[in-house]
Amino acid sequence: MKINVNELKNHVDEEIVFSGFVDAIRDKKWVMFVILRDATGKVQMTIEKSEEANKELLDIMSELTVESTIRVTGKVLSNEAVKLGGLEIIPSKIEVTSKALPLPFDFNNLDGVNIDTRMDYKWLDMRNRRNTLIRQVESCMTEGMRRYLYENHFTEIHSPKLIGAASESGSDVFEVKYFDGVAYLAQSPQFYKQMALAGGLDRVFEVGPVFRAENSNTNRHATEFTGFDLEFAYIDSYEDVMDLEEDLLIAGLTAVKEKYGEEIKEVFNTEVVIPTKPFPRIRLKDLYQELHDRYQFDIPTEDVGDMNAEAEKLTFKLAQEKYNSEFMFVVDYAATKRPFYHMRDSEGKLQGYDLIWRGMEITSGAQREHRYDELVKNAQEKGLGKDVEFYLQFFKYGCPPHGGFGIGLDRITMLLLGLSGIKETQFLFRGPNRLTP
Amino acid sequence: MKINVNELKNHVDEEIVFSGFVDAIRDKKWVMFVILRDATGKVQMTIEKSEEANKELLDIMSELTVESTIRVTGKVLSNEAVKLGGLEIIPSKIEVTSKALPLPFDFNNLDGVNIDTRMDYKWLDMRNRRNTLIRQVESCMTEGMRRYLYENHFTEIHSPKLIGAASESGSDVFEVKYFDGVAYLAQSPQFYKQMALAGGLDRVFEVGPVFRAENSNTNRHATEFTGFDLEFAYIDSYEDVMDLEEDLLIAGLTAVKEKYGEEIKEVFNTEVVIPTKPFPRIRLKDLYQELHDRYQFDIPTEDVGDMNAEAEKLTFKLAQEKYNSEFMFVVDYAATKRPFYHMRDSEGKLQGYDLIWRGMEITSGAQREHRYDELVKNAQEKGLGKDVEFYLQFFKYGCPPHGGFGIGLDRITMLLLGLSGIKETQFLFRGPNRLTP
Repeated sequence: MKINVNELKNHVDEEIVFSGFVDAIRDKKWVMFVILRDATGKVQMTIEKSEEANKELLDIMSELTVESTIRVTGKVLSNEAVKLGGLEIIPSKIEVTSKALPLPFDFNNLDGVNIDTRMDYKWLDMRNRRNTLIRQVESCMTEGMRRYLYENHFTEIHSPKLIGAASESGSDVFEVKYFDGVAYLAQSPQFYKQMALAGGLDRVFEVGPVFRAENSNTNRHATEFTGFDLEFAYIDSYEDVMDLEEDLLIAGLTAVKEKYGEEIKEVFNTEVVIPTKPFPRIRLKDLYQELHDRYQFDIPTEDVGDMNAEAEKLTFKLAQEKYNSEFMFVVDYAATKRPFYHMRDSEGKLQGYDLIWRGMEITSGAQREHRYDELVKNAQEKGLGKDVEFYLQFFKYGCPPHGGFGIGLDRITMLLLGLSGIKETQFLFRGPNRLTP
Repeated sequence: MKINVNELKNHVDEEIVFSGFVDAIRDKKWVMFVILRDATGKVQMTIEKSEEANKELLDIMSELTVESTIRVTGKVLSNEAVKLGGLEIIPSKIEVTSKALPLPFDFNNLDGVNIDTRMDYKWLDMRNRRNTLIRQVESCMTEGMRRYLYENHFTEIHSPKLIGAASESGSDVFEVKYFDGVAYLAQSPQFYKQMALAGGLDRVFEVGPVFRAENSNTNRHATEFTGFDLEFAYIDSYEDVMDLEEDLLIAGLTAVKEKYGEEIKEVFNTEVVIPTKPFPRIRLKDLYQELHDRYQFDIPTEDVGDMNAEAEKLTFKLAQEKYNSEFMFVVDYAATKRPFYHMRDSEGKLQGYDLIWRGMEITSGAQREHRYDELVKNAQEKGLGKDVEFYLQFFKYGCPPHGGFGIGLDRITMLLLGLSGIKETQFLFRGPNRLTP
């Protein structure tokens, strides 16, 4: 197996095998410099033209296009004159493993390239270090958060995406031809996370696709994205849910900062900030007052009891200015603005929250209503009928108090790296007009 | 937050809060024993009837149904007379957190209960320790394998499940109404794993749902299950892929044995066996000969160049008898029996393998064809046209040699625990006649 670029420094003066993409060829009078690239970096390969033994190597390279891949046997030398890490490979053998046709655009300079062209050729777009890094950071964030959950005795579940009834709301659901009938695509694993708790697992999470049939062609909406969802039992209140979310995000961000913090600063000009506990928490009513006093912002009548995009932006500003925090929990939303399965206290006050980060809502969390009679009442109040009947059954035979939340993985990746939108963030974006590649 | 059953031994003589299901109530003349249960075990709560202060607690408990949930404040005592772990809780306060209606069946004794009834009430079926353990073991196996991949520099991806063209074969694919057009549900992340490698990531994996529109109502088929898929670049041959799969499975099985080995033995009467490297490897031709000589088995004409269910069973027998192994790699399948994207060598020999474990194929792996011209030729040979055209593009602009495989997570969980079928194994089974709960 090959040695990676970031491992070469441990193999100076050794004969090794290196494989990678041909990033660039610089053909000088006396020497040919070939820049090779793998997922860990770039390295220079140097072929002296004066040496008779190099004739065959030069023949191979002179016919080769950039972005082809090769397999090189050679010696690693330390050479201070080489800008790229102070190392060079002196090849004794080169095999061409794939030949590249001329590329439709230069992925190192994407400024003038249309986002649709970039998505059409995502596998070229990704070769830009910036875009490779997006995937690596998302993976690292997920790993950090998942590790925290494993250490805290969570069980990972895989709930079905094919479901028999449109779950939360009938409008934004995709319909599947299912043999002689129909099925629907799950809009969230919410009901099934809760079912697992009614089933006696006490802490569960799931990382998987969620589907929303929203016909809006913005850079904020996708018809498919990755949800990071969890639910846990035996809580005392939704404060426990907020506490756990703090720990979870700190674990994820710490993993990212350790592994990619420097590179993120360099490539995205963004600092990974590890928040401190507790994140500031504010009641919606007090938030409205602060936004009015500080920024002369008043929530429009139709949004009273809830947030809107502008309020989220200003809340981030407030969090930074008043609390020196990038995060802010907002509580005391109106029950009318929230799903029927969020718990309310005896005065009807909603036991849930939103978390705002960098100008956007990244989570809605809550203690859930686990008492059958209350849940039936809440569902009826919202005018929900047959579609949630299967869900109500989960709570008939005893179920512990519990709560949880969901995070859009794509969205936190976007905010973490300061990206322009969801199209740039997702591995393969899906929208009303895009199902390829 | 509550203390779990398995933590109580660290809190002897302390006042604690415990929450859980009421597993059983044993009302004796002088004392009431209540067995409480959480995801980590069971504990006895003891209420002396002679004590005046207990009157209220007894009133609460005498009205309570089993499987309701309660929150208990009380003291943990060490008591050797208590069979259940030698501990008991002496309550000072009991709150009822949910009331259970009478259960439709006794989940502690599922022998006479129809599998469809069990699936209809999965959240009750799961409360059987055996079925809770299935989920915990699957999660642990996944964690162990994923940790191995993270440590070996794999990046986790989330490929789209909504796709524009029926991927590998047109027949078993689900069709989705997608706004004014149609989409399909991905039958595997195969093409996208490979795209990520063409995009410059060198090692990727994905754990996610795969969909198969097979209209067969057996206990081996499901229309949705969880795939554990990986792909990595810069391999020298498919031997590298087999090597990595060995390490991956050893990592997963080791994690399971450490955490649940004893309990699996007790509950499922099954030993978790950690295999040693290398797993035995046999050529299909030699396997046919061995199966003929030892077991008088001859592969039917239509399956020559491939395996069938009976051959898989006997191969497991051979692996145990001849190699003292539960695993066996079978190589040299006929290229005609394998997908077009599996590589063949210059003599047309397939560069892939199957892995047999406990009588079933658990993986097909291969070096993939990464050279555009060869891939086009293979696709044409198989009569594949427009549907794979988008996929062929991934290889036009350079792509390193690579290989990989996929494992059905449900299937290895089933085999690991010796379960009767996929319906019992899955969190929520999906088949042609089942989309609920």
